[in-house]
Amino acid sequence: MTPNPAARPAGSTDAALSDLQQSLGAKVVVTEAVREQHGIDEGWHVGHAPDAVVFATSLDDVVTTVRVCHAHHTPLIPFGAGTSLEGQIAALRGGVSLDLSGLDRIIEVNVGDLDCRVEAGVHRVALNDRLQRDGLFFPIDPGADATIGGMVATRASGTNAVRYGTMRDSVLGLTAVLADGSIARTGTRARKSSAGYDLTRLLVGSEGTLGVMTDVTLRLHGIPEVIGGAVCGFATLRGAVDTVIQVIQLGIPIARVEFLDAAQVAACNAYSDLDLPERPLLLMEFHGSPSAVDDQSAAVRELASANGGADWQWSTDTETRNALWKARHDAYYAALALRPGCRGIPTDVCVPISRLADCIDQTRDDLETTGLTATIVGHVGDGNFHTLPLFDPDDQAEREAVEAFHDRLVHRALEMGGTCTGEHGIGYGKLAFMSQEHDVASLAAMRAIKSALDPRGILNPGKVVPA
Amino acid sequence: MTPNPAARPAGSTDAALSDLQQSLGAKVVVTEAVREQHGIDEGWHVGHAPDAVVFATSLDDVVTTVRVCHAHHTPLIPFGAGTSLEGQIAALRGGVSLDLSGLDRIIEVNVGDLDCRVEAGVHRVALNDRLQRDGLFFPIDPGADATIGGMVATRASGTNAVRYGTMRDSVLGLTAVLADGSIARTGTRARKSSAGYDLTRLLVGSEGTLGVMTDVTLRLHGIPEVIGGAVCGFATLRGAVDTVIQVIQLGIPIARVEFLDAAQVAACNAYSDLDLPERPLLLMEFHGSPSAVDDQSAAVRELASANGGADWQWSTDTETRNALWKARHDAYYAALALRPGCRGIPTDVCVPISRLADCIDQTRDDLETTGLTATIVGHVGDGNFHTLPLFDPDDQAEREAVEAFHDRLVHRALEMGGTCTGEHGIGYGKLAFMSQEHDVASLAAMRAIKSALDPRGILNPGKVVPA
Repeated sequence: MTPNPAARPAGSTDAALSDLQQSLGAKVVVTEAVREQHGIDEGWHVGHAPDAVVFATSLDDVVTTVRVCHAHHTPLIPFGAGTSLEGQIAALRGGVSLDLSGLDRIIEVNVGDLDCRVEAGVHRVALNDRLQRDGLFFPIDPGADATIGGMVATRASGTNAVRYGTMRDSVLGLTAVLADGSIARTGTRARKSSAGYDLTRLLVGSEGTLGVMTDVTLRLHGIPEVIGGAVCGFATLRGAVDTVIQVIQLGIPIARVEFLDAAQVAACNAYSDLDLPERPLLLMEFHGSPSAVDDQSAAVRELASANGGADWQWSTDTETRNALWKARHDAYYAALALRPGCRGIPTDVCVPISRLADCIDQTRDDLETTGLTATIVGHVGDGNFHTLPLFDPDDQAEREAVEAFHDRLVHRALEMGGTCTGEHGIGYGKLAFMSQEHDVASLAAMRAIKSALDPRGILNPGKVVPA
Repeated sequence: MTPNPAARPAGSTDAALSDLQQSLGAKVVVTEAVREQHGIDEGWHVGHAPDAVVFATSLDDVVTTVRVCHAHHTPLIPFGAGTSLEGQIAALRGGVSLDLSGLDRIIEVNVGDLDCRVEAGVHRVALNDRLQRDGLFFPIDPGADATIGGMVATRASGTNAVRYGTMRDSVLGLTAVLADGSIARTGTRARKSSAGYDLTRLLVGSEGTLGVMTDVTLRLHGIPEVIGGAVCGFATLRGAVDTVIQVIQLGIPIARVEFLDAAQVAACNAYSDLDLPERPLLLMEFHGSPSAVDDQSAAVRELASANGGADWQWSTDTETRNALWKARHDAYYAALALRPGCRGIPTDVCVPISRLADCIDQTRDDLETTGLTATIVGHVGDGNFHTLPLFDPDDQAEREAVEAFHDRLVHRALEMGGTCTGEHGIGYGKLAFMSQEHDVASLAAMRAIKSALDPRGILNPGKVVPA
């Protein structure tokens, strides 16, 4: 947890801290516990504590912090809820963690336009609690109760993406404080625009390396009249995946479709006290009018049957549904609980859906050959799946075996035309994969953009773009 | 039509042409007719002929051309079908027009993944002809039979965007030759990724100023089982727009919903020999299973009735439907035909849908006060509408009145939280609006990105980003 002072000009942080304390007083915190907590996220990577944490409560605070860090060439790392998985918040070169959780206002909700503007520190669950009053919801659900700013930063998605898209599709515009402290408001409230470079989309997924997002305008959706949930077990993984491929090809607007392998189902049964059939499983959700939901679910049930699906369980009851999705969202903890005391590498490859069954099959074989404990769970409609191979933190050989497995998995996904990360992002944990996934010219373009927008390299250094 | 040699280093184009002729031989054309045709698009802006046209037929040809232009600091302007509207292809500073229509291979169609990879010069109608064989279609239809590369460059959309999105949402990845001749392949075939900066989205809408797109991977959709079309007249514009707002709020997945004002309906009736009711009109289309289409259309018909809609005409017959949509796509020519010999400024503002009725009402009033002839037609589900105020090219005062009207319209849209262009792009025709729509920091960021990726400023100079 020690920052590496050699990586920055000596004394830069001390001078910056003194300036920050003068401007922001008690909002600047340097206690060890707070610094350490801001340097480590929910993933498995080593934490790096910042030298100080600034608790911003306004755009002005953010501008002040960025200007001071810019003046002193001090690293600045934006912080939301700390729920990232790839070390995005680690202060690799020390500096200042800028905690945005105090920017938590829901600025406006426009029912007529199905959009809202919220500050970056608003949590997604709190937003949905507020939206419910107007019959609206924000569909992106990465599992964790992340902040909207953090979800923008990592280009998050989750279980609803098959129908509602990802953060890439959900952000109409945003306010970002750029590296020099200038304020850029990108996008408009119009649904589309061809007016210049898409700065919004460039900032979505930039993980705090190009600017500090302070507020975001989001697309919303009306809460569906009916929500129907289904669970269906399959004899084989391939039967489950083929069902989903056919659903997508037929254009059935399924809202959620999640795959759990038998090991994950068993883990969820144990952890969440359920009795789901311990076979390859699809958890599904359908949104719409009563007849639309009936239509969609009947069509999917038929496809499932034809692909070896059985034990179709159907529910429109909120409580049953919530229990199931709670279990799904707790899948990560359920998997960790398989070997108490162990840690896991949450892998995140995404492949063309036609290759998904192959990719999961080969990955399952690899796990068996390697003798690793791991479950598989996937946003199967997107071709995105997670494994969580476990390792004993005290067993270096096992850890290396897990890392080697992860390397092979990424290589397999890239060979199939996929990506090393569907939704978790790069942080510093996946930095090495960037040059496997992207060609020389693309990496050079990313570096050129980073240098152009942050010539002093103060914004979240050491992340996303390999040096 | 004369280029302005003062804007580039003297002699640079001559030297470049000599190099190009040596490498590419007969693919380099300098005849006046070809040059002039490549300098002027379908809009109303003055053309600027390039000094030469290169007819590329391969990625290698593109790389060669870019490298030569880079070496000699010679402007290079990518050319697709020439159907742009804002002077995107004008060779403002002379140089080389790079005609990509020879890159017209459909490289692959992946039915299982609902995607395809095509060269930039493929036309959208030809693509759909090919896709039909596999029961697929590509929904983006800007009206003109543009090339896919051109549609990527301008971030095009059209009548299907309300359901299927725009080019922003439809491009999974692309190959771009960057300013130094290096080849960047962005994106993957996976549906989503969080691996680094979204170069794909940065290039979509960059109008040839950041790179030359040579091939594109596109998302496709299954041809719906049933396509139902409806026409409905309204007593008032507001009744039509309110209907659409309610449709969107209820989440009814309408595939197309186009507004025509009474003047546009009259123009279409005259031009396309139809007898549509000459009132504010909605043209609609519903895609899905028979029961889904029935459901959706019944729900919309009820909403329309409640908002003063009448004379609901329904058809699932392909011929009737095609005639209607042909008339819709010919609306531009129908409007021009109202005053033969005149030209028109095709405006393209887009506003939040809650402000659309206000914006159209005020614009209609403005037209009447100013005494201009113009029709209004809109992608009302997106909040995007076009007027086509006509002017006699020999009447300087009338032209100025039309331009002043356009300025007021853009100002009105921006005040309402909208954009100066929903889908036509900036080119050089709307360059002056960029600094009205974007703040200083955003424009500075765009300029920094342009300089970083094209330090010599050779790629389509004078477009998109104001100096």
